[in-house]
Amino acid sequence: MNFRDIREECCEANRTLPGLGLVDITFGNVSCLDRTKGIFAIKPSGVDYSLLTPENITIMDLDGKKVEGKYNPSSDTETHRRLFQSFGNIRSVVHTHSRNAVVFAQAGRGIPCFGTTHADYFYGEIPATRALTVEEVKSAYELETANVIVELFRDLNPDEIPAVLVSGHGPFTWGSSAKKAVETALALEIVAEMALKTLLLAPDNKPIARHLLDKHYQRKHGANAYYGQSNTNG
Amino acid sequence: MNFRDIREECCEANRTLPGLGLVDITFGNVSCLDRTKGIFAIKPSGVDYSLLTPENITIMDLDGKKVEGKYNPSSDTETHRRLFQSFGNIRSVVHTHSRNAVVFAQAGRGIPCFGTTHADYFYGEIPATRALTVEEVKSAYELETANVIVELFRDLNPDEIPAVLVSGHGPFTWGSSAKKAVETALALEIVAEMALKTLLLAPDNKPIARHLLDKHYQRKHGANAYYGQSNTNG
Amino acid sequence: MNFRDIREECCEANRTLPGLGLVDITFGNVSCLDRTKGIFAIKPSGVDYSLLTPENITIMDLDGKKVEGKYNPSSDTETHRRLFQSFGNIRSVVHTHSRNAVVFAQAGRGIPCFGTTHADYFYGEIPATRALTVEEVKSAYELETANVIVELFRDLNPDEIPAVLVSGHGPFTWGSSAKKAVETALALEIVAEMALKTLLLAPDNKPIARHLLDKHYQRKHGANAYYGQSNTNG
Amino acid sequence: MNFRDIREECCEANRTLPGLGLVDITFGNVSCLDRTKGIFAIKPSGVDYSLLTPENITIMDLDGKKVEGKYNPSSDTETHRRLFQSFGNIRSVVHTHSRNAVVFAQAGRGIPCFGTTHADYFYGEIPATRALTVEEVKSAYELETANVIVELFRDLNPDEIPAVLVSGHGPFTWGSSAKKAVETALALEIVAEMALKTLLLAPDNKPIARHLLDKHYQRKHGANAYYGQSNTNG
Repeated sequence: MNFRDIREECCEANRTLPGLGLVDITFGNVSCLDRTKGIFAIKPSGVDYSLLTPENITIMDLDGKKVEGKYNPSSDTETHRRLFQSFGNIRSVVHTHSRNAVVFAQAGRGIPCFGTTHADYFYGEIPATRALTVEEVKSAYELETANVIVELFRDLNPDEIPAVLVSGHGPFTWGSSAKKAVETALALEIVAEMALKTLLLAPDNKPIARHLLDKHYQRKHGANAYYGQSNTNG
Repeated sequence: MNFRDIREECCEANRTLPGLGLVDITFGNVSCLDRTKGIFAIKPSGVDYSLLTPENITIMDLDGKKVEGKYNPSSDTETHRRLFQSFGNIRSVVHTHSRNAVVFAQAGRGIPCFGTTHADYFYGEIPATRALTVEEVKSAYELETANVIVELFRDLNPDEIPAVLVSGHGPFTWGSSAKKAVETALALEIVAEMALKTLLLAPDNKPIARHLLDKHYQRKHGANAYYGQSNTNG
Repeated sequence: MNFRDIREECCEANRTLPGLGLVDITFGNVSCLDRTKGIFAIKPSGVDYSLLTPENITIMDLDGKKVEGKYNPSSDTETHRRLFQSFGNIRSVVHTHSRNAVVFAQAGRGIPCFGTTHADYFYGEIPATRALTVEEVKSAYELETANVIVELFRDLNPDEIPAVLVSGHGPFTWGSSAKKAVETALALEIVAEMALKTLLLAPDNKPIARHLLDKHYQRKHGANAYYGQSNTNG
Repeated sequence: MNFRDIREECCEANRTLPGLGLVDITFGNVSCLDRTKGIFAIKPSGVDYSLLTPENITIMDLDGKKVEGKYNPSSDTETHRRLFQSFGNIRSVVHTHSRNAVVFAQAGRGIPCFGTTHADYFYGEIPATRALTVEEVKSAYELETANVIVELFRDLNPDEIPAVLVSGHGPFTWGSSAKKAVETALALEIVAEMALKTLLLAPDNKPIARHLLDKHYQRKHGANAYYGQSNTNG
């Protein structure tokens, strides 16, 4: 099999992270799935973004075995793998330690929808997971990290809320392409900064009204979306 | 008719937004009016700033019909159009989601005039609109967004306070040219950051005295202005 | 007379301001004094920093008359002039609206010495002036701005505390050269940011002990200074 | 003896500081030890980072005498020297006034471990020293600065917590190479920013659970570390 396309998509997306201000040092990774072939491309662990090439991206299968690549995959690989298994429409997962999103994760608090910047990307509050138990951390930590996300999304639609905050850790986002999942990671960091400052200015601030949330989310993502140049954004 | 001049003015002003730190992703747009011809140029929806050329700017008339352009205009076009109809002296409208100005919009609070940086640009508090009603959001949302601004300015002079915060959304600024309206959007973001931090340091901080506001605003914009190199700034 | 040297010193110092993050738009100016000739060079009003050349710097005398230059001097010229008259050892004055220093000015609060970063530059709290009266603002506003600074420094040594916050306005710094006065403006902005965040973290934080302040200030500026490569820094 | 290698290692590490946002003006320095030869290389005092070359780095011995170099060493040299004497495994010390780390130092507060970003680098809270006494400041200030650090680490492992905040002053970090010690200084600044904002959002926030701290620290640094491409990171 030839994995050229997802190697390139994965490499390019990972390389954009530092310039967008989303990662420091090597704190973040993007994966990219080919659902037909049952494999995904992911950043190698601990490698500088500037040194990434399509060739040194690691290829994994959905059972967690390495298919190709001289480098170990990201230590967060099991989290990506489990999210691909659980969320049927996604093709890419992004994990960062972007600073303002991490603040909400560290506080174990979701990010309320305080404005239309948020509503343009997320159809409601971006939730925070529960903390992992001792057993979950000691057994299969990275897999269990995904499991608490999946548990949280039993009552949420991951296509409408393409982001989560893992408590005490940081954000994960996902989407239909690596480029979109990275854009969502950037939007998350922006709304996190805005929400944090809003709460410092007005600690009891309320989320925007449901009708305004509906309007903004739907004008960009709904069946009759009119943002952008075609309904392909919808 | 030839729209070359406003296409260029509009294109150039839109392209400056990312470098000034005023927009992320595609969250902002500048329009530019030719009042004699009754038409205005505006950013196409969802197009990256780096890809803008005078040719792909969209031309609209003041009745809301597209006059020229292969792209859909900004989804905020109706807000721009209505502001051009209502505020007789303005030639350009700028909308951004700049981060600190959005914080005040999300809190539904105006930005008090806490210092001369503010007084050099805005003759008093930068106000926040009321929230839109369910009916306003569901009917003609973008037009009604302008209507709540116009309603707020019944008792304010838009030439003296060339900015507003739409609650739960973000800032709009305007001016006699696209360049000036963008400069005002930048000044707004700066005074928003300063005001936010001032309120965190001193939650009960009071606006500057009226005589200091008058002095700074008038030395730059009054009949006897002496800031800059001629009264053309006045 | 030939003013080439102070034109160049003044021009170069003004041009560094944007890159240091100390000014936005045209919110700041540097002046440079030749005390022997009784004249000073100052930024022209409202001119972009990138357009400054030694030739378009304005030359003023200490009586407030323009000696040379096609442009109007900074609208803050009278403040600079009066400081040169009052503080006998200074050769340069810098005025900015740097964001964190302005926050303390807007709150009318001095910046306490919370650490050695501060003590390396300022021998104690950086004070805030009283507000100007109606009469002071209406009569000779810019001159009176300097007068409230001078009033405040009756009991302070401007060589030991080379900075002040004009309430409701912003910071002024000074020094023995334009380069040093600009470095002091940068140090002020840095300690303002640190002090603001310290007060948000610990609202009742106390200044450092007198012996630590003495030690750091004296090891850099005292008779037996040992910071840097010679006592010329002292 | 030939000190080429540590001169180069020291020079290169010092030159990276401004680009990483860790120092302003000349507020920071890196040293690099050759334990076999009993000498260390350190930044010269007050010299701009951009002017550093391997040749103008100063070489000191562990008794505090200058071995080579035309410039005075950093005024903080005695602190570096004493840390090299006390912490047997370290090869480099970094001192900065990075802004968010300084905030905790100014408040005299340690940085709690609020998340996995912190746990990846520091095995628990980053502690703040006690204030120095009058006698300590007046006698051998820079040496005593190290002594209060060493006193604090009687009950801590400097290899597991490679950073400290000197109260009223700022951070020191260390490591097995200059590059690693600088990376730790960067990680410290990042976790300081995140911790500060976490405390502003949630003043009573609790550190992460011990099992999560253990997991993250050990997966990167423990005997069975699996982060990165080999156990050489461990």
